[in-house]
Parts: sequence; C-alpha cells; structure tokens
Amino acid sequence: MTLLHDRLLDLPTCDPTARDAVHQRAADILRPSGALAWLDEIAAWVAGWQRTDQPRVDRPGGLIFAADHGIAAATRVSAYPTGITEAMFAAYQQGRSTINAFARIAGAEVRAIDVGIGVPTGDIRYEAALTPERFDEITRIAFDEVDRLDNDLLVLGEMGIGNTTPSAAIAAALAGGETAAWVGRGTGVDDEGLARKRAAVQEAQRRIAGVTDPIEILREVGGAELTAIAAATVAARHRSLPVVLDGYVVTAAVLPLSVVNPDALDHCTVGHCSSEAGHRRLLERLGKRPLLDLDMRLGEGSGAMAAVPLIAMACAGITDVPTFAEWFGAG
Amino acid sequence: MTLLHDRLLDLPTCDPTARDAVHQRAADILRPSGALAWLDEIAAWVAGWQRTDQPRVDRPGGLIFAADHGIAAATRVSAYPTGITEAMFAAYQQGRSTINAFARIAGAEVRAIDVGIGVPTGDIRYEAALTPERFDEITRIAFDEVDRLDNDLLVLGEMGIGNTTPSAAIAAALAGGETAAWVGRGTGVDDEGLARKRAAVQEAQRRIAGVTDPIEILREVGGAELTAIAAATVAARHRSLPVVLDGYVVTAAVLPLSVVNPDALDHCTVGHCSSEAGHRRLLERLGKRPLLDLDMRLGEGSGAMAAVPLIAMACAGITDVPTFAEWFGAG
Repeated sequence: MTLLHDRLLDLPTCDPTARDAVHQRAADILRPSGALAWLDEIAAWVAGWQRTDQPRVDRPGGLIFAADHGIAAATRVSAYPTGITEAMFAAYQQGRSTINAFARIAGAEVRAIDVGIGVPTGDIRYEAALTPERFDEITRIAFDEVDRLDNDLLVLGEMGIGNTTPSAAIAAALAGGETAAWVGRGTGVDDEGLARKRAAVQEAQRRIAGVTDPIEILREVGGAELTAIAAATVAARHRSLPVVLDGYVVTAAVLPLSVVNPDALDHCTVGHCSSEAGHRRLLERLGKRPLLDLDMRLGEGSGAMAAVPLIAMACAGITDVPTFAEWFGAG
Repeated sequence: MTLLHDRLLDLPTCDPTARDAVHQRAADILRPSGALAWLDEIAAWVAGWQRTDQPRVDRPGGLIFAADHGIAAATRVSAYPTGITEAMFAAYQQGRSTINAFARIAGAEVRAIDVGIGVPTGDIRYEAALTPERFDEITRIAFDEVDRLDNDLLVLGEMGIGNTTPSAAIAAALAGGETAAWVGRGTGVDDEGLARKRAAVQEAQRRIAGVTDPIEILREVGGAELTAIAAATVAARHRSLPVVLDGYVVTAAVLPLSVVNPDALDHCTVGHCSSEAGHRRLLERLGKRPLLDLDMRLGEGSGAMAAVPLIAMACAGITDVPTFAEWFGAG
C-alpha cells in the first residue's frame, strides 16, 4: 500500500446543505429561472466542496508539477528535447509562460514544483516509472504543497517533455479499447514520432499486463508529475478545495483515482477539452463535461486556468445578485 | 436612407499588418507551435481591429440597451410582465444584476442605456416597430454612446421583455427557412406562449412580405434596443473597437448588417452560443464560432461578458509571453 492508497480510503463527501442552498437560491435569483443553466450547477458544486452557501473564487491558485521521463530520454516521443522541461520550469518561476499570463487575468497565483526535472523516471517500456519509495516521496511532496495553500479553487497543471506517452499508457490500461487510439501527437510529433509513441505504449502495456491495481498502474507507467497531480487531487479533497482539471495528461493522471473509487473526482471539474487524441473519450469515460472546448493543447494547466473566470462568475452569479424577493422587497 | 444605411457605406477594414504581426509572433512563442489554436487567431483578430501589434484587453466595456416592445404589451410572448424591463434596468444601474457580477470579474465597466423603456414599439404584427424618425433617433443615441467610450473591447447586450419575438422575425425574414424554427422559448414561455410567439412572427412576416432592404426589416419588425445594438456595432467599427456579440437577440440585431455587407461583422466575435432555438443556426449562417457553449439563455450581454477573460488571455498569450528566441537569447 502506498501513501496514496491510504489517503484514498476515507474521502470526505461534499456538504449537501451548502450545495442545496445554492440550488434553491439559484431558482429565485433575479433572472429567468434556469437562465445560467450549467453555471448555476457549477456554483452549487463549488459551494458543496467549499462547504459554504457563499461560494467564492477570490483566491484561485495553480500548482504546476514538472518532471522528466525516461521514455523521452531513451527515444524520440516528443517534438521537443527533454531539456525543455527545465527551461519551461524557469519560465514558470519567472512568471513568463502562458499559464502565468493567463493566471494574471484570472487573478490567480501559480506555483511550479519540480518533482523530478533532470531525474528521469524509468523507461516505462522496460521498468517501472517509479519505485514504491519514490512514488511515496512524490506523493508526500504534493500533499505538503496542497496543505500549504490558501486558495479557494485549485488548478492542476503539468510540464514534462514526453508525458503524453505515459498518459496514454495509463488511459490504455484503465480505460481499455484500442491502444493506438489513446496516443496522440502531443506537442506535435510527426508520423514517425507517433509510431514510436504507439509502440512504446504497447510495450508498456505488455509489461504490466498482470497489474490490476490502478495506483500501481500509475506508478508503473505514469511519471513523477502525474503522480504528484493524482496526490494533489486527493489532498485537495481533504482540504475542501475544489479542483479544476486541465488537459489529457492531468486527466490521465487522475483516472486511476476514479477507478479505485468512482466518487474520487467529485470535487473536480474539467476546465477544457484539448485537441489531444483521447482527451474527449477520457472525459466521457469520467462523465465530465469540459467548460471550454477551444482546441488548445498546451498543458501547464492553461486550459484549466482559462476556465477559472467562468467558475468565479458562476459563484458571483449566486452571491452577488439578489433574488426577486430581495430586489423587489428592497426596491 | 436611414443614418444606419449611411454609416454602413464606408466601413473601415482591419489593419492587416498588426494582424499578421501577431500571427507571426504566435508561431515563435514559448509554447508548442499552434498549442493555443483558436486563441491565437482571436489575438490576431483583436490586433487587426485595435490596429496594433500589441493587442490588449485592459479596459473592456459593456453597453446594455433596454427597451419595451409593443408585441409584449399586446399579447403574452414572454414569461415575464413588461414592467420587468424597467426593474432590470434599475438593477443594471445599481450594479446588481448578473451582467454586473460577471463584469466585475472580467474587469469591465457596464453602462445601461434606456432607448425606449415604457415607450413600446409598434406591435410588429400590424405596424412598423419604429418610424424612420425614431429609428434614426435611436441610431444617433447608440452612435453617441459608442463615440464616448474609452474601451479596448466592447460587449453588446440587451434587455427588453418580449424581444426574442422581434429577433425571430428578423431571423425568419433574412435567414429564411421554416419560420417556426426561429422561435424559441426565450425567458421560458409555456407551449401556449410559444404558439403565440410563432403566430406573431408569422403575422409580422406576412405584413413585411414586400420589404427587401435588411435595415428596413430591422426597423419594421425589430425593436429599439435591437436597432441600438446594430448601430453600436457599426459605430464600434468606425472606432477600431472589436465587439463581442451575446445571444440570440444581439445576433439577430446585427444580422441585417451582414446581409447588407458580408464583411460588416468582421470586427465582431461571438461570446457564446445560447440555448435559445435558432441561435446556433444564426451563428452558422454568419460563419461565426462561439467562444463558449454553456446553454446560457439570459441576455444582458452576460454570455459575451463571460467570454471577455478568454479574449484577454488570448492577447496576453501573445504580448506577455516571450518567443523562444527572446527566452533563450535572454537566458
């Protein structure tokens, strides 16, 4: 049993009183009944997980976990060299990347966390990505990072050259179907790169054919930043912190949680559907509707961050607008 | 010839140099090529219409035009009484409605303009909504409002109990097809209300069967706030001000402009696709893709305002992020 197994055993549920209070208020608010449709649902969802009938997004935050991958060091599965992981990490720290620009507009803080840059995981074709010890170590880092947060909404993002390959391996192992269909072009590999990715995922599949525990599958064919994202998602649940998921990599990283416990992602919404092959199918499998559908394929948490203002608006549409009774009573 | 006809004759085009500069920068920026997909196109579009290679959304603004409708006074085509138009106008002015709550999150100013509250238009079944004189008067008000703005992006919204009926009449007259398919439930009328709306639109259709000038159709079966929106859209074009269109009513209001001149809406993007029947078809007819698709059906400019942070992010993704050359040259 890993630390992540432990923390998954006793997941808090949402506060149904807070959630229902928002539903009730939404029905009376100064606009045609049901006019905000899904956004009212989002506000109720935030309320349930923030455990307050006054849901707010005043202090959104983002954690970007970055790491390198053995598979990317061993064979060309990305359009970019592995050194780019470190370069992008520096850009996050200096506030210069796309996620930082988006976060400034969303009024969010972003923190980038190195969970294995320059320390590539095992090549998933031939060995486990992470040892049990390393897996627990990364889990602990992610738990600590989330415990330190003072946010009311959490965006999870990732950076790791080559990481759509382990993502596809997780999806293929846990969601089934044609393996090749889970493998996309990521940052934009050519046809040969795509063929290499598919072959790598198939080899990893064969290697872990006997593994059934979803968390073990994450450890075997995932990666350090994927592990951190899964752990941060669970930690956020224990902190009453609603989570906004990003693209294919983040979704694949949390998929094992939902296989262990179908309710494990109830505190998560999906910021966007990316154009990476497999993301839409993965979201369908999770029963999650993305807020945005803009063909983005960047990662970094950018698609999730892009959705943050919408979630803030959903909440403000409940808390900052009077009901008909309040308005006409006051008028 | 109305004032609106005049102002439509000589529409400025976008600045292709600014637009192309953004496209070129987008191709080199510190992220995988094409990763922001459509958002890069949006940034280039803003640049072209703001006439700068540094597109920004620092001062977004919203104009909400409000007015009453003869058809709503004469027969029940809305789930709400006509007095609600005035009540909502007061809510906008006091910053208490949904659009105000959304605007605070988008960092936008919102101004509500009364172009005919308590002065209902003619009942479009039997007479023109607006006389030529009144049409010009409203056009002038909208021109003046836009001329006074100090914004870098403009959201257009509307309020007018009953106004999906004139919107459907415009759409039916100009976009053709089955009249009934353009008539939806608006704020939520029941089946009888829907039948009344359809009958009203069909009567209006018969009355204006000989009218071919799209602007005259707007005057005949539109309304005061719809006219103001069409005029504000044209005025924004003359001010190098990109426009974000809202839902069905706003889209129907600007449809006549695009029939007069297929390029007339090139400076407009569409904030969202609402759940009002006909909106999606109208957007397809205009060849416009909505940024959001959230089943909203509120009006007020709310769906357009919800998209403003995305447009701001698209611009910041160009101006606030270095190119690979800038980053690695500097590093």
